[in-house]
Amino acid sequence: MTNIREIARLAGVSTATVSRVLNNHPYVNEEKRRKVLELIDRLDYVPNSSATSLKKGMTRIVGVVSSLYTASSTSFIQAFSLIAQRHGFNIMIFLTDQDPGKEKVALEMLRSKQLDALVCLHRANEWNFIESYAKYGPIVTWQRLVSDRIPSVFMDQYEGYRLGLEHLHARGFRRILNVYSSRGLNTPQRMRAYADFAAAHELGGSGHPDFHGKMSLEDGEELAHWWIDQSDPPDAIACSNDDVAAGLLTELRRRGVSVPGEVGILGFDNNNLARLLDLSTVHYPSDKQAENAFSILLDRLGQPAPQPHALAFELIARQST
Amino acid sequence: MTNIREIARLAGVSTATVSRVLNNHPYVNEEKRRKVLELIDRLDYVPNSSATSLKKGMTRIVGVVSSLYTASSTSFIQAFSLIAQRHGFNIMIFLTDQDPGKEKVALEMLRSKQLDALVCLHRANEWNFIESYAKYGPIVTWQRLVSDRIPSVFMDQYEGYRLGLEHLHARGFRRILNVYSSRGLNTPQRMRAYADFAAAHELGGSGHPDFHGKMSLEDGEELAHWWIDQSDPPDAIACSNDDVAAGLLTELRRRGVSVPGEVGILGFDNNNLARLLDLSTVHYPSDKQAENAFSILLDRLGQPAPQPHALAFELIARQST
Repeated sequence: MTNIREIARLAGVSTATVSRVLNNHPYVNEEKRRKVLELIDRLDYVPNSSATSLKKGMTRIVGVVSSLYTASSTSFIQAFSLIAQRHGFNIMIFLTDQDPGKEKVALEMLRSKQLDALVCLHRANEWNFIESYAKYGPIVTWQRLVSDRIPSVFMDQYEGYRLGLEHLHARGFRRILNVYSSRGLNTPQRMRAYADFAAAHELGGSGHPDFHGKMSLEDGEELAHWWIDQSDPPDAIACSNDDVAAGLLTELRRRGVSVPGEVGILGFDNNNLARLLDLSTVHYPSDKQAENAFSILLDRLGQPAPQPHALAFELIARQST
Repeated sequence: MTNIREIARLAGVSTATVSRVLNNHPYVNEEKRRKVLELIDRLDYVPNSSATSLKKGMTRIVGVVSSLYTASSTSFIQAFSLIAQRHGFNIMIFLTDQDPGKEKVALEMLRSKQLDALVCLHRANEWNFIESYAKYGPIVTWQRLVSDRIPSVFMDQYEGYRLGLEHLHARGFRRILNVYSSRGLNTPQRMRAYADFAAAHELGGSGHPDFHGKMSLEDGEELAHWWIDQSDPPDAIACSNDDVAAGLLTELRRRGVSVPGEVGILGFDNNNLARLLDLSTVHYPSDKQAENAFSILLDRLGQPAPQPHALAFELIARQST
């Protein structure tokens, strides 16, 4: 029966090289790789991968735990996949739809060494439960968390939101309504940013209670109807994300409201919708966060890792403010 | 050392039940599952998964090969993930970015039994190369392919495109420009649909050569500039997808062109952008295609599979035509 030693002998390379080719490691000489693959093809050799991973203890698979896809999570996952593949890792996606049981499937696979590491974009279980799995393999998160066991590539949205608010102020808006999302994670930072901003400029608020739990295009469209119904509407709306801002902007324009003439609109994330609709927004470097998440995991797996990027928000001023 | 028999004994269940819990199979009695997981927790038992999969010959992992994310591929992948997870499978994503080498990584993992099956959204290698891997495990594709070895959930776009063209005709448009995408797979069907449509209505064309290779928002924006520059522009544009239509519509309106008054615009796919911009478009059921793809794989793996959906295009008439 064909084995790895025979292939190495026939190809004139070491068994370590054959092993690297079989495990899709980068940095194998292209000619050697081709020769090994040709022999594998010709001899119809099927490596027993389970036995292989049993021996070396690594599967070179990283799990990605996410709720359903959104514009920013697909940007993160795409960037994470590409950098992982460049380093010879594959990724396994777990879309939890906020179901703790589905998330547990991923955690159990880390525990039983079917995954080398895990990146958690959105969590469904409590943090202390997730942390109890960190002894089985490195876990990194996209969310806000102060933990020795689970590093985070979270960016404090205080900075980004403050940047957006200062832009609205510079454009002359004073009665600013805040529209927050549902998850508690970023909202406290944004609320703190607004409070500090309002105090610094001695502003009195929009005259309306802020909104919470708004995340979708449909939420933005409903917000437009609310705005139209007010006798004393706010003069600007800072939205939780670009989807809400896009729904709001589009529905207001459908109803003949002038943006930014009658009301200014600010998004957050800088996705494709924002670009298409000329929405002013705050750029959020989710692709760089993904690359940093991979670097942290690689480092914790004891492998040479690329230097992480410096992460910064950026104001993108377009036509809606 | 704790083993599977000891856990079965302490939990008062069969070893088969413990095994099902460990492998995340659905349809385990919830109380038994809880009891087994508690014991596993308490005894800190780590199942040797590689040994497990060695024995039973299945990893319960399905690979998904895709180029980079687009609106319709994320919709497909999300639906595929959710149905796979409901059946106790996990999915591994390979974003090839059209690189044949990256696709080969997935094919080699099928060959070496690290994946049970593969779904190929976009291919990078030649079909006969991909087909040579079908002996190692089932492969299904989203693309047009007539093959016994690789079933396809492709929908013939002749029907969908013809539906869109007939809609443009019913709205009074006669000089219709076709904007096709770059990949050769759907374009011939769409061109045939246009030829039959034009013959049936005795139309003479738009007076301009059709466009090819247009797929992005930016392509749509450039198309708007082209349209504005014509002394004798077409009165309607049938776009390759919603992204092109969205870029075109938005840029024309930015420049003060009335849509559909001066020119009608038709998209294809019915994604979020189309809904947001009130674009008339052809609905493409990528989520149902994904569920059908999973059913086919499950069946070929010898497992009970859900009945496939009937697939049909649907015209969504909105404000751009």
